[in-house]
Parts: sequence; structure tokens; C-alpha cells
Amino acid sequence: MHIRKQRLLTPGPTPLYPPALHAMMASDIHHRTEDFRKVYKSALADLKEVMGTSHDVLMFAASGTGAMDATVSNLFSRGDKVIVCSAGKFGERWVEIAKAYGLDVTVLSAPYGEVVTVEAVAGALAAEPAARGVFVQASETSTGAAHDVRGMGRAVAKTDAILVVDAITGLGTMPLDIDGWGLDVVIGGSQKAFMIPPGLAFLAVSPKAWKFADTATLPHYYFNLKKEKKSGDAGESSWTPSTALILALAEALKYVQQIGMPKLVENAQLLARATRAAVEKLGLELFAPHSPGASVTAVKAPRGMDSGVIVKEFRNRFGAIIANGQGSMKGQIFRIAHLGYFDFADLFAVIAGLEIILHAHGVPVEFGAGVAAAQEIYAEAAVAPQTVNA
Amino acid sequence: MHIRKQRLLTPGPTPLYPPALHAMMASDIHHRTEDFRKVYKSALADLKEVMGTSHDVLMFAASGTGAMDATVSNLFSRGDKVIVCSAGKFGERWVEIAKAYGLDVTVLSAPYGEVVTVEAVAGALAAEPAARGVFVQASETSTGAAHDVRGMGRAVAKTDAILVVDAITGLGTMPLDIDGWGLDVVIGGSQKAFMIPPGLAFLAVSPKAWKFADTATLPHYYFNLKKEKKSGDAGESSWTPSTALILALAEALKYVQQIGMPKLVENAQLLARATRAAVEKLGLELFAPHSPGASVTAVKAPRGMDSGVIVKEFRNRFGAIIANGQGSMKGQIFRIAHLGYFDFADLFAVIAGLEIILHAHGVPVEFGAGVAAAQEIYAEAAVAPQTVNA
Repeated sequence: MHIRKQRLLTPGPTPLYPPALHAMMASDIHHRTEDFRKVYKSALADLKEVMGTSHDVLMFAASGTGAMDATVSNLFSRGDKVIVCSAGKFGERWVEIAKAYGLDVTVLSAPYGEVVTVEAVAGALAAEPAARGVFVQASETSTGAAHDVRGMGRAVAKTDAILVVDAITGLGTMPLDIDGWGLDVVIGGSQKAFMIPPGLAFLAVSPKAWKFADTATLPHYYFNLKKEKKSGDAGESSWTPSTALILALAEALKYVQQIGMPKLVENAQLLARATRAAVEKLGLELFAPHSPGASVTAVKAPRGMDSGVIVKEFRNRFGAIIANGQGSMKGQIFRIAHLGYFDFADLFAVIAGLEIILHAHGVPVEFGAGVAAAQEIYAEAAVAPQTVNA
Repeated sequence: MHIRKQRLLTPGPTPLYPPALHAMMASDIHHRTEDFRKVYKSALADLKEVMGTSHDVLMFAASGTGAMDATVSNLFSRGDKVIVCSAGKFGERWVEIAKAYGLDVTVLSAPYGEVVTVEAVAGALAAEPAARGVFVQASETSTGAAHDVRGMGRAVAKTDAILVVDAITGLGTMPLDIDGWGLDVVIGGSQKAFMIPPGLAFLAVSPKAWKFADTATLPHYYFNLKKEKKSGDAGESSWTPSTALILALAEALKYVQQIGMPKLVENAQLLARATRAAVEKLGLELFAPHSPGASVTAVKAPRGMDSGVIVKEFRNRFGAIIANGQGSMKGQIFRIAHLGYFDFADLFAVIAGLEIILHAHGVPVEFGAGVAAAQEIYAEAAVAPQTVNA
């Protein structure tokens, strides 16, 4: 038996930043103490800086879906007209949430792998002048496609509606000028570009969105944006916070600040570009070639091959967990992630592994060809060597 | 400067079981894998065993308040008549949640430090035959008082209502025969007797309560009991689970099973008895002398002394975090916790520290007198020495 390290290479949970993981060992801390208030306040402030917004940023002990729920249940009322962009599994989740709360939903659908256009959103807003909100994924994790939320922001800003952006895998993988582009609610999750385990959800709330909270009538309690804002200003959470994860977050945010958000985004985008070059070189087809995002690259399995075989082979041969397709895409695509704590060495290994797996299953492959294509992107981008302190 | 260890001695977060804390280091695990499904399934099964119930047990990425919210939003409808027992801060939280969701609430109040009686509940049920639910805290953490949920179960079982028990600090500190006593919903939290950081909430749901889910009409999405039950049966959570905390929980549950739930309860009850004996010996007054629970013992500060001074002195002199009063009790009482990973050595140190603090503030104290009273209980209970593997 040879050594086979465990590698988590999925678009969430993403690889963990070790010092953040270790920070959880200091969890014997009480949340209503000055020590913890300091941690909490600075984590919120750092999160705000990293997200690059002047809007209020809130945190919940929940997974990202909790923040999606919070947005609907806090800012809308039963019967409100809303427009949902749905281009994959997470778009469908917006539809489900909006319907669960009795909103009057117009769905703008795009097939998996494609995106909903700015024109479609503008058209729907013109057709539904009473629309109160537009819901979209910045990056649709199930397909790897990215929406033009900048263009959508422009269209929505002219109306009385708010733009609600699930940026759970968008943050840290694409530029998001929250304030400048009119992104009224932006949602994030801890287990994505923030490099820590799941269990924390984030929201940035614009002044326009806050006005919605004043008139919204849907019932809610645990997820209470106004209460959480007031608590956060005092350095506390409304309910017992997920202290271990907040300690981890504080540590990871320091690292993200050190890199800088633009570089983190560039990192993901370079890896995505290199991945596209590599898989195309290997004769594989991209699943979302027209609007490729940088959180994850979805690749079609070779004709006649179940993508689950590739996922399984990665696990069995290399201890590496990569993502299968979700929902109806299961078995058809596999997904290589780039968001957060991923580097080129990870990618070289993944592509080399992919070559071996394809070869083992009779797909004609020249060993090293895909890796070379990724190396070309690395060389071309002139990624500067960094001095690492021993 | 002398060594001053950090000690978390509050009724939640409670002291952490080190192997559970360390288990979080294996968080580079994906939640949609066979490896994690195994962990999740066995954690749910162990939780069920430890809670001693045949009812379905569910888990959410949230703090305990999330599970309280989930109960109301999943099992009730706007306008439903309910009875809430309120004898402290957490009773008030039930009132707030029920009102936030538009229930028609009858509040049975008891002053802080007292409890709502079974007779009061039976009377309210007789007066409100349409009542759909009775809400109560098994242990009211803000005062240390315990409700007779066994008696309440008997009263509620005769009606069409369900009994919803916040047992967040009740589990592991008092016998709770969930099935036998007719406790229809029992809520727990990770940061209590389960010895791990906050961020996970648990619910046990009876067949009678499940029927409520079929007809309830309040909107909800993130907290969806039926969906979570279905997911749990398949070894998954509906949304991304808090993997790090679930790994910790799995480890802590092994320890609780090794001790056995009855012994864990006895441990808390012995510590509570010893604490009562010690503080009374020191001339201090118990805050809830009539219905003392074993999760925490609330003690009145000596006349003319702010309880915050005692809390602060514990922190400054001994690095120990003990709890002040909550809400209107702040400054009047301090609370010594017993639930979960607490032992007699912890208690001896707390009582000795308390003696020193009282003495330093001019309260006449004979050093060692309180400790001796606690030691008497230890000796009398004949706590058996355990062989510890080196």
C-alpha cells in the first residue's frame, strides 16, 4: 500500500486553511465576555473589509441556505411579486424558498450550463413593474456558470426592487462591487472562499434593503436581520454564536486580508483558466463554456462514461474528493473547484490524476498534455514566487 | 505573575471534552460522501440512545433558539391557541417566538426563581380546551429552577395538545423519560451536557407531534422537520451540515455513552447538591431554593454586593468564567454550572475561589468551610475512584 493523502477538493466544503482550523482549539471561550466581543467585532469588521462594502454585514449560525431563508422571511411579505433567475440547482432553491413563503414568483429559467441574461431580467422588470425583488446566484455552483450581476444591478437599481445575490461561491471568485453595482443583499458562507468548515452564513444588507425590513410582514424569529444588526453593533450575536467557527473565521480572514481580495479572486480565475485549458487539451468538453465562473469548472464526462466513475476513481486512487454533478447533472459532469485555499500545485495534481483515470478507462490521453496546458497558463500569468518563512 | 489557567465554567458554553475538540481537526471531509454519512448516521443514532427515546431525533446547524423556532414554525398555524410557562429569560423567549409567529398565547408566569406548577398547566388546559400546545423549559437556565415536566406530560397527554420542552440545559442534568412521560418535542443544544462548542441544535419529535406537522401552515424553509427527517434517514442533512461540530459531537457522544446518561445526570445532581451545601454554609442564599435544578445553581450575591463583582473577580483572580444573572437578574445573582464536563475538582476550586473573593470583599468567611461542605457530599455519595489509563 502506498501513501494516499486525503484531499478535499470540492467547491464547498473547500480545503481548510490550517491555522484557522487550529484556532478552533481555543473554543473554551464564553460569548458574552469582552474577549469574545473583541473577536466577534473584528471578525465582522474584517468580513466587511474583505467583502469590500460599506453595507452592514451580519452573521448567522447556519449554513448558507439559512441566510437565503433569512433574506426572504425578513424583507418580503406574502404575495410580493418577485423575479427569480434559475440556471441550476441553487436557482431552483431560490424558487423553492420564495414559494415556501408565499411570494408571487416569476421564474426566468436558463438551462443548466447557461445563464439568465441581463436583458431577460430587464424585460421581466418592465413586464412586472410591481416586482419587489430579483433573486440570482452570482456563481451557480451546480454548473460553474457565472451571472452578470453587475448588469443586473444596473437594471434593478432603476426600479423599486432589490437585487438579492447568493454569492456563496461568488465571493472570492469574481469581482463583486457590492456598493457600486447595487447588490442589495449579498450572501456568503464560511465553507467557501473563507476556507473554514461549514456552519456560518453571512449577509451584506444595503440601505435600500433595510427599508424593506421596515414594512415586510412574513413571520420569523431565529433569523432576524434587524435584531442581529443591533446585536452585532454591540459586538454580540442575538443567540449563542458558533464560537469555534468564528475563531476559525477570524484567523482565515487575516490570511485573506494578507493576500488581498483581488488577488484571491485572481487566484481562482487563473486556476479556472488553467483548468479549462487543460481539460480542453484532453479533449473534454466544458459544461458552461459561454459564462464560465471561477468558483468551479464543470466538465462533461467523456461520451459513454459516467462522471461518477471519475469521482470514485479520484477518491480510490488519490484520496481526493472532487464533485460530481448535482441533481439532474449527476453522472454527466464532474466539477473541479478553485475557490478559496486552492493553489496551482493542487491543480497540477488533479489534472495529472485525471489523465491517469481517463487513460485507465480507455480514453486516449497523452500523459502530461493537460498538465502542460495548465503550466502554460501559470507561466504566462507570471505568478511571482513567494518567500515562504521556514 | 503566577500561572492562571483559563476555565470556562458557565452553563453554556460548558467545558469542552478535549478529544471532541480535537476531532474537529478532521474537518476536511465532504458531507455528501459515504465516510460522512457513516459519521452522521451514527451520531444521530447515538444521540437518540443518549436521549433515551424511540422518537425521531433531528439535528440543525443552528443554536438552540433555532430548534425552538423550528418547533413553532413547523408544528403550528397562525392563531393557534398555546400555553407558555414562563419562569425566566428562556420562558420569555418561548413567548416571543410564539408571538412572532402569530400564535394566540396564554402565558403562565412565575417569578424568576420560582416555577410554573403542574396544577397551573392543568388549569389552563381545562380553561382552554382548544389549546394546541404547551411550551416549557425543563431547566430554566436563567434561574436554575427545574419544571416538573413529568407532571406536565401527564396533564398534556390527556388533551389534543403537545408538550414542547426546551431541555437545552435539562438534558444530562435531570431524568427525562421522553417517551414514557409524553414529552412530544424535546430540544437540546451542543454546547450544554454534550460538551462541545455551540452551533448544533437537536430535536426529538413524537408521533403525536409529527401529526401536527401535517396540518400546520406557518411558512418555513431552512428549518423543515419533515425534510430533515427524510434526509437524516438517508444519513444526510438537508443543507450543508456543520461538519466540524458533528465530528466533535460523535466523539463526545461516545464518552457520554461510556459514562451512561443516568450517571451523567447523577454527576450534575451531586455537584448541584454539593454547591447548595457549600454556598449555604458560607451564609449565601439560593435563588431558586424550592425547585432547584442541576444544570446550574443560582446564588444571591451578599447584601450590598453586585454579583458582577464576583464574576469579575473569578475572571481576574482565577481565569474562570462563571455566569452572572441574565436580564433583570444581572448584578443580583451569580450562577455556578454543573452540566456536562464538570467534576468535583472543578467545584472544589470554584468554592475555594468564592471563599477568597468573599473574604477579599469584607464578607466574613471561614476559609475552607464551603469546600468542606462540598467534600461532605462527595464522601457521603461514596463516589467510586476510577482507574485512569496513564
